[in-house]
Amino acid sequence: MKTLSENKCFGGVQGVYSHDSRVTGTEMTFAVFMPPQAEDGPVPCLWYLSGLTCTHENAMTKAGLQAHAAEFGLAVVFPDTSPRGESVANDEAYDLGQGAGFYVNATECPWAPHFQMESYIAGELRDLISEQFAVSVYHGITGHSMGGHGALTLAMKYPGQYQSVSAFAPIGHPAASEWGRKQFEAYLGKDETAWAGHDAALLLKEKGWAGDILIDQGADDQFLELLRADALSAALVETKTSHAYRLHHGYDHSYYFVSTFARDHVSWHAERLIG
Amino acid sequence: MKTLSENKCFGGVQGVYSHDSRVTGTEMTFAVFMPPQAEDGPVPCLWYLSGLTCTHENAMTKAGLQAHAAEFGLAVVFPDTSPRGESVANDEAYDLGQGAGFYVNATECPWAPHFQMESYIAGELRDLISEQFAVSVYHGITGHSMGGHGALTLAMKYPGQYQSVSAFAPIGHPAASEWGRKQFEAYLGKDETAWAGHDAALLLKEKGWAGDILIDQGADDQFLELLRADALSAALVETKTSHAYRLHHGYDHSYYFVSTFARDHVSWHAERLIG
Repeated sequence: MKTLSENKCFGGVQGVYSHDSRVTGTEMTFAVFMPPQAEDGPVPCLWYLSGLTCTHENAMTKAGLQAHAAEFGLAVVFPDTSPRGESVANDEAYDLGQGAGFYVNATECPWAPHFQMESYIAGELRDLISEQFAVSVYHGITGHSMGGHGALTLAMKYPGQYQSVSAFAPIGHPAASEWGRKQFEAYLGKDETAWAGHDAALLLKEKGWAGDILIDQGADDQFLELLRADALSAALVETKTSHAYRLHHGYDHSYYFVSTFARDHVSWHAERLIG
Repeated sequence: MKTLSENKCFGGVQGVYSHDSRVTGTEMTFAVFMPPQAEDGPVPCLWYLSGLTCTHENAMTKAGLQAHAAEFGLAVVFPDTSPRGESVANDEAYDLGQGAGFYVNATECPWAPHFQMESYIAGELRDLISEQFAVSVYHGITGHSMGGHGALTLAMKYPGQYQSVSAFAPIGHPAASEWGRKQFEAYLGKDETAWAGHDAALLLKEKGWAGDILIDQGADDQFLELLRADALSAALVETKTSHAYRLHHGYDHSYYFVSTFARDHVSWHAERLIG
């Protein structure tokens, strides 16, 4: 693991690191915020998965999470959204290929050799963070847009690894959205049965979530239909999942929306991870 | 005035606007955050001047000021740091020309036709903001690095316009720094008597400031010598100016430093502007 930068921030340290990933076969960059409480021992860890086109950097600089993580004593991990590099497959569209890994393990060419973001996030990077940083065994996961999809689906697929889950404006039903169908076909193939394990609305029905879930959504989100917010909110009710689904008048899809509700999410995870 | 974007944020509105400036002879872009309190009537206004290479956008997206401005009920204005455009003089160095206006009115060629940032900030943009936004007559001013220099010097030059002033890691004595001498010679000419009116350490001695001043500075700032932090802190003591100069161990010059102490500054201005 290489340290690319470390800056003191809210009494803690905002770092950016890279490592050679076995899982993706590429050098992967990620960011970690360690709160001041980590000086006294391991702290719980919140994973923040970012959306389309983002790297580790967008949320790190624009979501304002560090202030809240320092207040509540959580580490925050900001992974990249895909493998990257000249030797890595890509597409000219903003929503496929590099910057758009969708948190799945690709089985199809040309994506399969590197696009293994599910195993990377839930496995290799999880192990690396646990080894290299003073984090406890309590982990929560959240994310925005494609990252909200990642948070919800990884939590339901790996419930033993995540004790809390929330999302900002997640892609809630990708198997029935243009933000999902195109990518799942490319990464997972035409057989839609392989898609169901990566769709929050479907996973709620198939596997469910034993805890509760916090979702914030802007009512004036310009991507409301692509997110299939309707299908996710319906599935939460239909499956009687304990949850708070909050629709906020006037808010759009931007980081101005994320930053506005960031403290609520960090506080919410801290309650569940610290007790 | 044109509206380029408006996003709901912390219950208020983060907007980006442009207008044709008479003073700079260019189209100027600026950002304004209006807190939710502005719906009930005019609110005090905090000016945030940015540093070298920045536009209106850097602090708007990275300093986290909106949360605090919404909490305390202040508007925040984020001006650009210089005129811009193909017809505007520039220099290949990052610290001269576009992105580096230094908040002075240039008298020398080729800068004089457009580089009139002092009159722009303290005059034209002030008038425009007062006309177009629900701001009261109470204004404070702050800034970072070159913008901290701008905040301190404009406050002392126009004390009737600003009721409060603070700065993050300001260039404190530009007339004796490589961040200052090069630019003042280019913009104002070789006669150093013309520089004194744009140097915080010198202005403290010449004009002083009747109120108090808050300065935050990172002890591990990589530009500590260029900022001449030593000269500014000495001048504050020597002139017996009421102030709090806070040097913070481990913090550098980045927005991670600014965002960490942003709430303290907004709170401090609010106390002085709202009472």
